[in-house]
Amino acid sequence: MNLTVVGLGLIGGSLAKDLRSKCIAKHIIGTDKNIDHCKKAQELGIIDSYLPLEEAVKDADLVIVSVPVNATLKVLPQVLDAISDKTVVMDVGSTKSEICKAVENHSKRSNYVANHPIAGTENSGPTAAIDGLFDKKTTIICEEEKSDPKAVLLIKVIHEAIGMHVIHMGAEEHDRHIAYVSHLSHVISYVLGKTVLEIEKDETNIFELAGSGFASTARLAKSSPEMWTPIFLQNKKSLLKSVDEYLKNLQDFRELIANNDADSLFTEIGKINDIRRVLEGLELKRAKGH
Amino acid sequence: MNLTVVGLGLIGGSLAKDLRSKCIAKHIIGTDKNIDHCKKAQELGIIDSYLPLEEAVKDADLVIVSVPVNATLKVLPQVLDAISDKTVVMDVGSTKSEICKAVENHSKRSNYVANHPIAGTENSGPTAAIDGLFDKKTTIICEEEKSDPKAVLLIKVIHEAIGMHVIHMGAEEHDRHIAYVSHLSHVISYVLGKTVLEIEKDETNIFELAGSGFASTARLAKSSPEMWTPIFLQNKKSLLKSVDEYLKNLQDFRELIANNDADSLFTEIGKINDIRRVLEGLELKRAKGH
Repeated sequence: MNLTVVGLGLIGGSLAKDLRSKCIAKHIIGTDKNIDHCKKAQELGIIDSYLPLEEAVKDADLVIVSVPVNATLKVLPQVLDAISDKTVVMDVGSTKSEICKAVENHSKRSNYVANHPIAGTENSGPTAAIDGLFDKKTTIICEEEKSDPKAVLLIKVIHEAIGMHVIHMGAEEHDRHIAYVSHLSHVISYVLGKTVLEIEKDETNIFELAGSGFASTARLAKSSPEMWTPIFLQNKKSLLKSVDEYLKNLQDFRELIANNDADSLFTEIGKINDIRRVLEGLELKRAKGH
Repeated sequence: MNLTVVGLGLIGGSLAKDLRSKCIAKHIIGTDKNIDHCKKAQELGIIDSYLPLEEAVKDADLVIVSVPVNATLKVLPQVLDAISDKTVVMDVGSTKSEICKAVENHSKRSNYVANHPIAGTENSGPTAAIDGLFDKKTTIICEEEKSDPKAVLLIKVIHEAIGMHVIHMGAEEHDRHIAYVSHLSHVISYVLGKTVLEIEKDETNIFELAGSGFASTARLAKSSPEMWTPIFLQNKKSLLKSVDEYLKNLQDFRELIANNDADSLFTEIGKINDIRRVLEGLELKRAKGH
């Protein structure tokens, strides 16, 4: 299969690596508005060659659009304009409603499969691409009824081949759920980073005291503004709902501490520990291949 | 050296393991109000035997008090009452002001070294004890001027022997700093756990979509209420200050999203990315052994 990857960052690069190692992609063309990313991806063997967008996609069997979600709104219609009828196109964006809306009336809408592999790290660019990033993770295909069934089948098969569990969902349902289990985590991690960086100005060397707990909670605060600014804005409605619930819960938790309410605090934390069941159940399920 | 560990949980158990493997502790006695922890710790070879508190500490060279910080307020004076003049006592609590205050007028105050090793996991009990937990981590000795200098030297030496970097600080300064880099992280992680568990009631299978980002940010929400309820309450003043700053920052961040202010959001996240410098600088420094 001839694969073209539009956007040679962490996700596009890692998909190219895995699809090559699984013998799914034979020849890989890359394209990126940043020419340094093209050169670096070629140097790393992630892509075989690079070309301008229209040329890169016109003879592809599969095009993966892996650019920030604001850029996807512009690039995805361009890709659909430029491809042949036989080409299948997928994206990897962390939002789905606005992206699906941007191409809903496109004449090649059925060539496109709306897709979101839930995998990543806090790093970006082609050097951040890693082997096996998607193994035992989940990908979500949205609005499958608007895509050609054979295109959906292809997208399903290649994700399963790289170790993923494929689920299906409406675009709005996707955005509502992902607001809670991904976007909210990023917001609270960014705000933790900000709060501690601010106090660092007055309290020198405060980070000397940071342990693995802080590192874990603040890890997502390293994520790039190029990727996350447009995600937050495209998923504004659901994200604000989750942030407002979070703010209310944090206020309540604060009051338990302020009131020295040890019993309620103990009970509350005990209930929250249920998150262990959820996270470990999930790990177990994934380890068993679902 | 004869070591007695009061409280056979993650920290006490892991210290016993490392001090034995570094040939610092030859004979280790354990004591714990939970008899099952005593039996399990002996079965795991963490301790050689177990005894009631007074008997366990009376002939020890070193006593490590590793119980939740509310229990420390009660147990630490009991230990100081029961020991001989030659015995050195240290604790491992995540708060220092109230613990130091609880023994400030004790006749054996100078035998005690106030200490906080910044290491841990979200697990608890003797089965959670692991080898090498403290390697390349920091421990903080507080109010060293109130301890016998030879006791301080001993505590410094044994922590360095297990790979730790030792720093010194006032008890109040410790609590102020730790509120930001540890206790606040726990609060925001608990509240994330709560918010997503609540939404799970309406949105079944939402955790199917949880990725490594959520797992990282919610990891601390698995931590036990026995340990964390008293920490939050003992460090209430500093913790509430940090929570209030966090709340304000989260409100501000929310408004940037609500106002579609892409430019400010981008700039803000870019500044927060500075946390990468901090966390990676810290890792590098620790890898080099400071």
